[in-house]
Amino acid sequence: MANIIYGKRTVIEAFRSGTTVKNLYIFENMKGKDEFLMELKDLSYNQRLSLKEVSKKDLQIISKTQKHGGVVAEVREKQYVRIEDMLSFAKKKNEAPLLLILNGIEDPQNLGAVLRSAEGAGVHGIILPKRRSAKVNPTVVKTSAGAVYHLLISVVPNISQAVSKLKDNGIWIVGSDSSADKMYYEVDFKLPTAVVIGSEGRGIQNLIKRKCDFIVKIPMLGKIQSLNVSAAAGILIYEALKQRLEAK
Amino acid sequence: MANIIYGKRTVIEAFRSGTTVKNLYIFENMKGKDEFLMELKDLSYNQRLSLKEVSKKDLQIISKTQKHGGVVAEVREKQYVRIEDMLSFAKKKNEAPLLLILNGIEDPQNLGAVLRSAEGAGVHGIILPKRRSAKVNPTVVKTSAGAVYHLLISVVPNISQAVSKLKDNGIWIVGSDSSADKMYYEVDFKLPTAVVIGSEGRGIQNLIKRKCDFIVKIPMLGKIQSLNVSAAAGILIYEALKQRLEAK
Repeated sequence: MANIIYGKRTVIEAFRSGTTVKNLYIFENMKGKDEFLMELKDLSYNQRLSLKEVSKKDLQIISKTQKHGGVVAEVREKQYVRIEDMLSFAKKKNEAPLLLILNGIEDPQNLGAVLRSAEGAGVHGIILPKRRSAKVNPTVVKTSAGAVYHLLISVVPNISQAVSKLKDNGIWIVGSDSSADKMYYEVDFKLPTAVVIGSEGRGIQNLIKRKCDFIVKIPMLGKIQSLNVSAAAGILIYEALKQRLEAK
Repeated sequence: MANIIYGKRTVIEAFRSGTTVKNLYIFENMKGKDEFLMELKDLSYNQRLSLKEVSKKDLQIISKTQKHGGVVAEVREKQYVRIEDMLSFAKKKNEAPLLLILNGIEDPQNLGAVLRSAEGAGVHGIILPKRRSAKVNPTVVKTSAGAVYHLLISVVPNISQAVSKLKDNGIWIVGSDSSADKMYYEVDFKLPTAVVIGSEGRGIQNLIKRKCDFIVKIPMLGKIQSLNVSAAAGILIYEALKQRLEAK
């Protein structure tokens, strides 16, 4: 997991989440009235952290990107959790678990976008495979708008085993596939649910698809055959949230 | 509007939509068994167009990108339409109009992603401002997976006037804003509707917000304050589609 993160908003979210920031670098000629910058200064003051004002070139070298937005931080590694921790978290909130299993998203920007929507919808945890998936790298952190730091994430060696464990814990597995008969809004997302999102090109692996309790589709009325994976994820998890809010 | 487009899928969608392709360039060492390539060859044969097999370097020069995926085409300019054409299109389909007004999306990738979701949801037309908005450039075409070619798009000098015209035509204007009281799923999207999506940083302009019949919010349960604009657009238009499909 990325030790170097960048972008004002991303760094602020890392602070807010309680992530230990080891070093903070800002552009030496940044204008002082910037609202984000003021907050960053407050946050770093509270953590007794010294802000290092450096040149644009140094920021680029540290962050390995030009898109640092004038703020770069070195943070403690993101701590991943176990699936049990996500279930406990949901239980503590007195909510039926709502989890997201990402079955091989390859593009870091897609992964970041999915994580941002998941955090917005109050998803209790994200399950990522160790291999054949985008890693939670600085691009993912940035695209997620820092949501990475507020989410419980579990990186598992074997998605199929993780699905079995979830099923043993009474979680219903809902996969999305264009060939399904059932519409995505015809599933009861108020039940303990894990939503499986497939990879950009190949969708959900057959092995995992067979383990799903429900396969649902998102209707495509036009000529294009599929949605972007992050759009699909957003639509599914917000349908789940909506059903839960309406039932309250 | 982009005359040069690239990416296998994008070029195929341009063909399928009936867009005139003037020139088609493919990578000279492309493997012949590629399914997309076979379809491209068929399509270009049907249009009596000769395929030019060129070097990787030439593809890069023509497309001005390295992400051409081995296929570049020069196409006739996208023809924009009038708002009246969108309304006629919906009428012909015997559907209540569902339109999208993009009030200043600045990032081409966001614009492309919104267009892809809109095409999937069967939106009847997209209204874009002439200024202060990403243009429909090659990045937008690519990110939309070619959806640009299947959508009716109107580029207007003045969004406020366009909104007034829609209201005169009995269209309800629904804007999204985090400060709203009403949830997005509490609006009746079965009515003739135009959904307004604001810009990434500033949301919907005040002038436009005041003209909205309903302001709705997408619930944010986490710490992050807003969704990505393309995720928000996808959630709103798919809620509209869902309501319409359920009513059938």
